[in-house]
Amino acid sequence: MASNEVRKDYLLNRWVVIAKERKKRPTDFVMNDLSKKGGVCPLCPGNENMTPPAVLVYLSEDGKVRKEKEKNSFRYNDWLLRVIPNLYPVFAPPTQKNLLIKESPELAKAVGHHEVIVESSCHKEQPATARLSQLVHVINAYLDRLAALSKKPYVKHVSIFRNHGHEAGASLSHPHSQLIATPFVPAILEEELEASKSFWNKNSECWLCEVLKKEASGPRFIWENSNFVVFAPWASVNPLEFWVLPKRHQSNMLAMSGDEVKDLAETMRLCLGGLRSLLNDPPYNFGFHTILSEDAKDCYHWHLEVYPRLAIWAGFEKSTGMFINTISPEDAATELRSAVQAEKKALTV
Amino acid sequence: MASNEVRKDYLLNRWVVIAKERKKRPTDFVMNDLSKKGGVCPLCPGNENMTPPAVLVYLSEDGKVRKEKEKNSFRYNDWLLRVIPNLYPVFAPPTQKNLLIKESPELAKAVGHHEVIVESSCHKEQPATARLSQLVHVINAYLDRLAALSKKPYVKHVSIFRNHGHEAGASLSHPHSQLIATPFVPAILEEELEASKSFWNKNSECWLCEVLKKEASGPRFIWENSNFVVFAPWASVNPLEFWVLPKRHQSNMLAMSGDEVKDLAETMRLCLGGLRSLLNDPPYNFGFHTILSEDAKDCYHWHLEVYPRLAIWAGFEKSTGMFINTISPEDAATELRSAVQAEKKALTV
Repeated sequence: MASNEVRKDYLLNRWVVIAKERKKRPTDFVMNDLSKKGGVCPLCPGNENMTPPAVLVYLSEDGKVRKEKEKNSFRYNDWLLRVIPNLYPVFAPPTQKNLLIKESPELAKAVGHHEVIVESSCHKEQPATARLSQLVHVINAYLDRLAALSKKPYVKHVSIFRNHGHEAGASLSHPHSQLIATPFVPAILEEELEASKSFWNKNSECWLCEVLKKEASGPRFIWENSNFVVFAPWASVNPLEFWVLPKRHQSNMLAMSGDEVKDLAETMRLCLGGLRSLLNDPPYNFGFHTILSEDAKDCYHWHLEVYPRLAIWAGFEKSTGMFINTISPEDAATELRSAVQAEKKALTV
Repeated sequence: MASNEVRKDYLLNRWVVIAKERKKRPTDFVMNDLSKKGGVCPLCPGNENMTPPAVLVYLSEDGKVRKEKEKNSFRYNDWLLRVIPNLYPVFAPPTQKNLLIKESPELAKAVGHHEVIVESSCHKEQPATARLSQLVHVINAYLDRLAALSKKPYVKHVSIFRNHGHEAGASLSHPHSQLIATPFVPAILEEELEASKSFWNKNSECWLCEVLKKEASGPRFIWENSNFVVFAPWASVNPLEFWVLPKRHQSNMLAMSGDEVKDLAETMRLCLGGLRSLLNDPPYNFGFHTILSEDAKDCYHWHLEVYPRLAIWAGFEKSTGMFINTISPEDAATELRSAVQAEKKALTV
């Protein structure tokens, strides 16, 4: 008997089995407390010399934010937030030798940038529990670095992402995000852009504006404020996956206003807080999908995708490109909706 | 300084960073012994009633293999190998109600089959240490089920794969593979087939026949016998990844001769044995890529892809579809080549 469903992504040719038959409940995935490892944290205040000099530091001055850059011989230690080059960059700035990025149809140089955003001086201040004011700094740092790097002639895409928890690939527990600037647009973004363009050509509308209209009031709706909507996507690849969309059409997150930044901070705080309280601080990954090129302006809609890490992609997923998700997006939305509401209440009281 | 490389897959628009800069060595990934959990194993002999009746049992009779099917009320307990339906199938056989597989452009029923191949009656006989004669049974069971299922009118693809170790998604430690028959061709296979066709149209040659010629004697070569070649692919997504290819052009693994089955058993035994001794029994996934449709006959070449599970796909991989591999395929091949040679020596002595 087959009552599991196979669902296609809104846009991509990506199918997901919604395996209701497995009868898993979100709470089946509750994590056990992990005993924390000891050792010196290179991202904590006082240990700045363990990292390369920051490309951007936020300092507090008379209640305002002063922005600085460190020199090789000097480090600030009274910072609110730091952005540092990754010690082991996957993509690194070009030298005279490798200005030629593409060497052959199958070979290119990994020219670009790889940075770490140290989100707080407090070792425990992760987005799920952060002060809203601190999360506003984090988002502003994303935007500052995105603006600076997208001006480089060899940068075609900037990926901003976060790995939370050891199982999600975080090698340091101090709260941090990462940024990788690449000399080409990666596969998923390219596919999204192509499909966005053909949707636009057919419908004279942005596909995610369409999706937003549908999901803002349906069974997969999770949360909204004046500027953002959160929902579990129709063909969620990951259990408890959710997407955060700006209500106003914008292809590039640099278009955000100050009010939108504040509302994004609230949205991330509440939704990641809800996920944390629902599953006892599970590991997760998130990634911003934003496009730099001008020809995306009308057809693409930037957004944030959050992937809780509750399942293992195994032989089937890896050899077929088809995914198995054991929680339906509708059940995921129901659980997350009440967890986020409880979080909002706790924050307001 | 960027000396990391970005490499494109032979065929797909899939790019990988070969991050030599991280200076990882294959032995950096050596696993620690995991303490084994207790409890009753439902796949061990004597516990057959804990599973659904087998769709295929291999029994030994006068040195030959007798093939049987179990009934609801009866189980064999003197088996060499069993194939049973998965208790929680992701794809399940059709009923009268859901003969209509595709309900809308975004929705289909998960009609198909999901089976477990119990590879041995011995709880410890994994392919890396198995008797060759037992591995021949395993491959023959793959072929028997592939032949039976590919005749069903609603089956368009059969995926045969294996998850080894808890971290690779294996929920039971008794050696087993799985088979999932789907009512459509999954994304990766479809992309491969499309690209194979256009390569054929341009070159009147199979792309993997071409690749085989190149890799059979280069820096990524690992092992060969009369009928199979093993190498680390040029743009390996996973550290220590290797592919096993039949030398004779075949699009569907059902075309294998008896001698080829024996040579495949030897190849799997030695390469998985080499991987095991190199990294102290690491988790891995493998998947067969084989195509059923007749129009693949000339252009497609079936093969086995083995993915050691030594890295975590995190926020970057998941949101961009671009992968980071910290071991170059050339280094991987060097290490695997000597490990496989040592394994061959040990097996011959």
